Amino acid sequence: IPLSNGRGAFSSSLAEYALMAALHFNKQVARCQQNRRERRWDKFEMSVLRGQTLGLLGFGDIAQHVARLGKAFGMRVVCLRPPGRFPEHFRDASGTRPPLPFLTRPMLEQSDVVVCTLPGTEETRHFLSSAEFDAMKGGATFVSVGRGIAVDESALVAALPRLGGAALDVFETEPLPADSPLWEQPDSKLLLTAHNADYTAD
Amino acid sequence: IPLSNGRGAFSSSLAEYALMAALHFNKQVARCQQNRRERRWDKFEMSVLRGQTLGLLGFGDIAQHVARLGKAFGMRVVCLRPPGRFPEHFRDASGTRPPLPFLTRPMLEQSDVVVCTLPGTEETRHFLSSAEFDAMKGGATFVSVGRGIAVDESALVAALPRLGGAALDVFETEPLPADSPLWEQPDSKLLLTAHNADYTAD
Repeated sequence: IPLSNGRGAFSSSLAEYALMAALHFNKQVARCQQNRRERRWDKFEMSVLRGQTLGLLGFGDIAQHVARLGKAFGMRVVCLRPPGRFPEHFRDASGTRPPLPFLTRPMLEQSDVVVCTLPGTEETRHFLSSAEFDAMKGGATFVSVGRGIAVDESALVAALPRLGGAALDVFETEPLPADSPLWEQPDSKLLLTAHNADYTAD
Repeated sequence: IPLSNGRGAFSSSLAEYALMAALHFNKQVARCQQNRRERRWDKFEMSVLRGQTLGLLGFGDIAQHVARLGKAFGMRVVCLRPPGRFPEHFRDASGTRPPLPFLTRPMLEQSDVVVCTLPGTEETRHFLSSAEFDAMKGGATFVSVGRGIAVDESALVAALPRLGGAALDVFETEPLPADSPLWEQPDSKLLLTAHNADYTAD
């Protein structure tokens, strides 16, 4: 009997994916590949994860695995717990969602790598939209491995030029529609996988 | 006054590079990039580092950093200490180097990821040549971050089809000559950097 959502079963592979993505954009793998194609010896300055801040949206089993790996790399880890536990994220006194959730802004502002592991609920729908991407550091890496609906893909595409890059394993609609602008983003800015980051042999 | 070889100063960045490479080939990043270009939703089975064996050639400061990260990923770590401490690696009773060093073979045979951090001495020259690459597991990842002279590049090029991939930051001649066949290898098999894996801001 296949297990569709064994708690923790996929956390390790998703954490590996998140660190792969953080390293991929920090080490500028696409630039290295382009250099090889053009036979260019390009001794550029390479970023290190050590000393960077890792921001976790959601702090369930997946995020805890990501946090452990981030700490092994010498990263500082900050997190927001899953929505529902901090209802002030989602609505102000008038009952409407504020432009940028109260506790989310400082976390996004200080993170060099943001990993979204949020579940897909009505409350997390487009949790990351224009205001959130605008709040992120220039050059930050964004990784999405929770549920696709938590990310406003149009807002991410608009924000990509100022981000270091994004790795997406989950999408608002899966399979990703043929007309999605995500397919058209360059290697240097986007890494896209088919919701298979946790599709492993074991 | 710039330090050219501060012991340990670059170990952390080189360890990050080694794990980036291990993840790059295990997650098949080049395949993911090709899929995006071709708008292909390809839900392939993705390898995990967890449970794999990490083989370290050399066990100085760099290798110890790699070992720590490998363990954080749940890898099993095996190592060979630097040459000189195990002279039986390098010559048999007749004084000539045996076809495959005594202790090297089992290490290469069991490793899924091999990271070479060997220094550049007359004894380590072409430490990794045809016999060594032939002994490696099919699909294994090879990473070279020590000194270029330790790797026989012609033998590596010949072995690439059966390896999972190789990441090289150091070369027999630097800058890499324009006529090196390394420039012509595909993204899926080779990641090449310009001896800048430890060229960081701090």
